[in-house]
Amino acid sequence: MRTTDPTGLPTTAIIGAGISGLTAGKMLGDYGVPYTCYETSDRIGGNWAFGNPNGHSSAYRSLHIDTSKHRLSFKDFPMPEEYPDFPHHTQIKDYLESYAAAFDLKRHIEFENGVQHARHREDGGWELTLQSGEQREVDLLVVANGHHWDPRYADFPGEFTGETIHSHHYIDPTDPLDFKGKRILVVGLGNSAADIAVELSSRSLQNQVTLSTRSSAWIVPKYAYGLPADKYFVTTPYLPLKWQRWMVQKMQFMTGSNPELYGLPKPNHKFFEAHPTQSVELPLRLGSGDITPKPNVTLLDGETVHFEDGTSSDFDIIVYATGYNITFPFFDEDFISAPGNHIRLFKRMFKPGLDDVVFIGFAQATPTLFPFVESQTRLLGAYAVGRYALPSVAEMEATIDADHEKFLGHVLDRPRHTQQLDYFIYEHDLRAKEIPAGVERAARRRPAPAAAPAPARAAVGA
Amino acid sequence: MRTTDPTGLPTTAIIGAGISGLTAGKMLGDYGVPYTCYETSDRIGGNWAFGNPNGHSSAYRSLHIDTSKHRLSFKDFPMPEEYPDFPHHTQIKDYLESYAAAFDLKRHIEFENGVQHARHREDGGWELTLQSGEQREVDLLVVANGHHWDPRYADFPGEFTGETIHSHHYIDPTDPLDFKGKRILVVGLGNSAADIAVELSSRSLQNQVTLSTRSSAWIVPKYAYGLPADKYFVTTPYLPLKWQRWMVQKMQFMTGSNPELYGLPKPNHKFFEAHPTQSVELPLRLGSGDITPKPNVTLLDGETVHFEDGTSSDFDIIVYATGYNITFPFFDEDFISAPGNHIRLFKRMFKPGLDDVVFIGFAQATPTLFPFVESQTRLLGAYAVGRYALPSVAEMEATIDADHEKFLGHVLDRPRHTQQLDYFIYEHDLRAKEIPAGVERAARRRPAPAAAPAPARAAVGA
Repeated sequence: MRTTDPTGLPTTAIIGAGISGLTAGKMLGDYGVPYTCYETSDRIGGNWAFGNPNGHSSAYRSLHIDTSKHRLSFKDFPMPEEYPDFPHHTQIKDYLESYAAAFDLKRHIEFENGVQHARHREDGGWELTLQSGEQREVDLLVVANGHHWDPRYADFPGEFTGETIHSHHYIDPTDPLDFKGKRILVVGLGNSAADIAVELSSRSLQNQVTLSTRSSAWIVPKYAYGLPADKYFVTTPYLPLKWQRWMVQKMQFMTGSNPELYGLPKPNHKFFEAHPTQSVELPLRLGSGDITPKPNVTLLDGETVHFEDGTSSDFDIIVYATGYNITFPFFDEDFISAPGNHIRLFKRMFKPGLDDVVFIGFAQATPTLFPFVESQTRLLGAYAVGRYALPSVAEMEATIDADHEKFLGHVLDRPRHTQQLDYFIYEHDLRAKEIPAGVERAARRRPAPAAAPAPARAAVGA
Repeated sequence: MRTTDPTGLPTTAIIGAGISGLTAGKMLGDYGVPYTCYETSDRIGGNWAFGNPNGHSSAYRSLHIDTSKHRLSFKDFPMPEEYPDFPHHTQIKDYLESYAAAFDLKRHIEFENGVQHARHREDGGWELTLQSGEQREVDLLVVANGHHWDPRYADFPGEFTGETIHSHHYIDPTDPLDFKGKRILVVGLGNSAADIAVELSSRSLQNQVTLSTRSSAWIVPKYAYGLPADKYFVTTPYLPLKWQRWMVQKMQFMTGSNPELYGLPKPNHKFFEAHPTQSVELPLRLGSGDITPKPNVTLLDGETVHFEDGTSSDFDIIVYATGYNITFPFFDEDFISAPGNHIRLFKRMFKPGLDDVVFIGFAQATPTLFPFVESQTRLLGAYAVGRYALPSVAEMEATIDADHEKFLGHVLDRPRHTQQLDYFIYEHDLRAKEIPAGVERAARRRPAPAAAPAPARAAVGA
């Protein structure tokens, strides 16, 4: 990696001031790396800045985080004591604001001046074109533009003549569409699908809500035994992940998580093999007849939708809660892109062969993104100052394959799952294995210090 | 009891065509007792006739029954297979309609012709004054006018200058008040309080919702392990009720039912000593900061409400979900009434000393009213035809005391609890003990058949 700064450290650009960008900035600051964060919006928070003018927030008005504050907090910045177990999006935003204030991050951020194009120079380093039209050169690029802002739609045959909306654009039952007295089909069974189907199926709105899913999903409660359920769901690096999955699968009946209990299709994966959907309300709404469960859509035909079970119904609105594409609008597509949400990254951070770009936050970490990102930035900081060195390209490729097998070998190859990762295992691997190994590599590669000059006395004596 | 009908059976009037009145009518019909049902409304269903023009329905638009259909069904008329686990109020109404149709009950009902006054004649029997102004005389009166229609308000000191509404009048977030962007206090922690607080605290409505409770309550889920929770909650008459309560109390941690986990006050009773509140959503909303828990109100002062913990807040609306009075508007108050919801009834059916009035449906039966009412009407039918005879007044009084001790000895004497009763125990007691005992009493009291006439031959021979 090129280093052009007088300190010998790489001048660095961070793309995006959401969770990943802020955390990356905080850590680079700790390491004294000179950096600037470029943000398209006029505010920090990215996805958690409800109504974000850059259009990158997927937050609906009622959104609460699906992870309890105990698991969510950055290790070095716990959430306020008075926060509820499952904070509202406004509280997450406030938390990020106080994080930015505590570490004085905003002075490094150029607002409304996002990176429009990033060109990798032949001899290393990057030429950035900014929103303002200015050009900047940096040594190191940190990509933290998030992966929950470019809506992915299901590609069903036929054409639907009613209204179509993606969950990304859903705000509340009156915004941006009037969801009252409507026949509504929600497609998907992730957390957004569950939340939106539950909200729209409130009988007070007099809608008819149907939920259709292709892959189905296991449904876990946010509370178990009166405590946030994620207090119990901890994986350990000291037992094979396979065994742990097997054990959890044996206990599964205790959580009533099988979607088939409530009329939904059988999941295409076993319990805890993929990110479960967290909802206490969805089973109840299904069991109360407020939401009609359906398998996958086979055909759109005017206002009629046909399902895999041979039934069909008419709808006014389809809500696609079908996830997001990983998109890097600032890279030329043939240079770096993630078709089908696939991108081969070493430890989800490094593209083998490119040593001056680091990706932060590109995973669907279980239980949550916040501490995952924090653990990635620890490696970022060490890498930026040369304390950590990457392995060879061949080793990186092999590790990518092995990690893929570990975290994803057991699930179907679907865009929804490509990002999936177990935080506890990942964090332990980075902290206890990968970072020490990289530090050792860096030490080995460092030129041996020049032989100490002969003692002055000897010189004099010469 | 007087019997004026040529069949030797008592002419009978039923007051009300809700669940209790319909079931009573069905059973009297089975026994061939001549009866008429007088209903103030133009429809059957009482509480379950949403928007009932007689004002006696407490159903809000989103109301689902809190008991699963498996427990709810009349034994002789199961709910349709295709019903969801927890039917909506419209489905309960449909069910009652098909019940009425199956047993041809409507031809016995005079609609919009309720009993306005019932006078007990000195020599037995009743003089009824109807809505139409007509008078009718009957031998037996069945009181089935329900106990969930006359709103009970909490009596707090001071005066509140905002809007006040009882849950009885609540329909949905726009009816009869506009509950959007409001500061709302819900008082109570029964099922209605929980449902309404949850509905109004949806972030899409942008309200601030506070929930205040005096007695507090244990909160149980509608589903456990993926099955309707009331599948597990069965008491048995073959073990002391005290032991069973103790056992359930030991298991309580499994359901996360302690309201203190979510910031609510400690209940004034142990787990399963009183009707629990069934809600999966309330703990989540409290744990998400969408509902603020508070102890009892101490003072109303303008738009400010003071609470027992010394805090106070301002509100636009108070919703009293504080239960109902037991009211018999057709009886002179000094003749029969239920001050503080207390009324001494043998098996919740007979007023000692009055042998020609039977009360049906006056209990808060756990898990639910439907089969409880059905079991009461079995005794009613046997009593009306003289197959069952009551014990002495003294015995009835002693049994009332014993039953009170059994079902209520362990809870505070509050209007909310006076009606409480365990259905499984009650049903077994009626079926296996009280009805057989009453049948035996009836047989003993029946005049011995006249001595058989001497054989004809003998007469001839005389």
